[in-house]
Amino acid sequence: MHSDNLTRDDFLGGQLVLSQPKTGYRAGVDPVFLASAVPAQTGQSVLELGCGVGAASLCLGRRVPGLELHGIERQADHAEMARKNAEDNGISLTVHDGDLAQMPEALRAQSFDHVIMNPPYFDRTRGSMSPHDAREQAMGEETPLAAWMDQATRRLKPRGMLTMINAAERLPDILSALDDRLGSVVVQPFSARTGRAAKLLLLQARKGGRAAFRLSAPIVLHEGDTHTADREHYTPAIQAILRDGAALNWG
Amino acid sequence: MHSDNLTRDDFLGGQLVLSQPKTGYRAGVDPVFLASAVPAQTGQSVLELGCGVGAASLCLGRRVPGLELHGIERQADHAEMARKNAEDNGISLTVHDGDLAQMPEALRAQSFDHVIMNPPYFDRTRGSMSPHDAREQAMGEETPLAAWMDQATRRLKPRGMLTMINAAERLPDILSALDDRLGSVVVQPFSARTGRAAKLLLLQARKGGRAAFRLSAPIVLHEGDTHTADREHYTPAIQAILRDGAALNWG
Repeated sequence: MHSDNLTRDDFLGGQLVLSQPKTGYRAGVDPVFLASAVPAQTGQSVLELGCGVGAASLCLGRRVPGLELHGIERQADHAEMARKNAEDNGISLTVHDGDLAQMPEALRAQSFDHVIMNPPYFDRTRGSMSPHDAREQAMGEETPLAAWMDQATRRLKPRGMLTMINAAERLPDILSALDDRLGSVVVQPFSARTGRAAKLLLLQARKGGRAAFRLSAPIVLHEGDTHTADREHYTPAIQAILRDGAALNWG
Repeated sequence: MHSDNLTRDDFLGGQLVLSQPKTGYRAGVDPVFLASAVPAQTGQSVLELGCGVGAASLCLGRRVPGLELHGIERQADHAEMARKNAEDNGISLTVHDGDLAQMPEALRAQSFDHVIMNPPYFDRTRGSMSPHDAREQAMGEETPLAAWMDQATRRLKPRGMLTMINAAERLPDILSALDDRLGSVVVQPFSARTGRAAKLLLLQARKGGRAAFRLSAPIVLHEGDTHTADREHYTPAIQAILRDGAALNWG
């Protein structure tokens, strides 16, 4: 992709600099939250489904050294950009070209301690509008959420952990798509401000887990009741994640 | 049932006095929360599935005058007690003996503005322990949650509203059991204290509703971080519901 069509953006307070296309889906705070929530430890393996330009995997790689990071991406230009971003930032990330619905042989032969994903937020089958349809266009035809869940689960080792982020309004679809191989499910909502409905959610599930479902108290993104200035005023915990690359405290 | 095996308990600060068995499932705060959350208006019809001794329906009837209240209950002694409780409290409630899985003809011939329910909290098919198994014993063999949802939806008028309460840990089962005839789903979690995981949840859904799913900010039951005295210290909003019979403010 010609550099005129790219931006270079700081993540984690400049600890990570990513090139990404000016148009279509652009990595913002969501992949950073996703990475912050993954309890991966040095030496473990991680697969990101639909890794785009690599934002979530590279944020995770910056926080936790010595991970074996893999991503799969079906848009060849994004996959290429993810490789370049990994190299530019000195983080090892193996990017596989391919569609998760037809998992490449190289990945089918492996299983992972963690699978992470940020599936598109818009369910075309419902016909509802979404603030995220730029991403949808970038993703092309939608892969059903159940296929994401199925592929994620297949690629997990026994006791492996799925971590995903999505729009809160997709919770019914997400929980319906969970299958019996996953358990110990925790949902962590995010609300823009105290007392507001949830906007985003993180979900974590363990392959073979048996603990009861848990709905955690929401994490609030912004301080105060309304915007008081031009710039977003994040809470200290959120600032630590976005600016310092801190791990998220699961509620 | 012999009166030695019964207790008479105050609800809504004594606005309602209910007889119920000493053993088995006993109505506590859950049916009061359920009733507080139903946006029924004078002249509307309401059906409670599994009404037990009538706690939720009678709390609702106390708050909103002039409702046409119906309940179905498969334990004959509970159904009889519900009739007696309605009479003792001067609230009109028609209690149908029967199993919701084999809906009596009299109810199959009707549809309702509201259906309300508090299905058992324990899913035997999962084999997990539950703090609510006294209720399970009282209920006998479990009716699958999907059957509750299906029967509730069938009995709703177009645009009619389902309101239910359940344990928060059953959210995946509940959302999976929702069918396509229901929409505009709102989940309202309750947590014991600020920052804690959800313990209970209310769910509301409209037949034919099209609005996006909404996960509201939790309602906190108790003030402070821990118990500071022998008695429960409810927040003012919860006290208003439990002691004064106030309506719940959906978040």
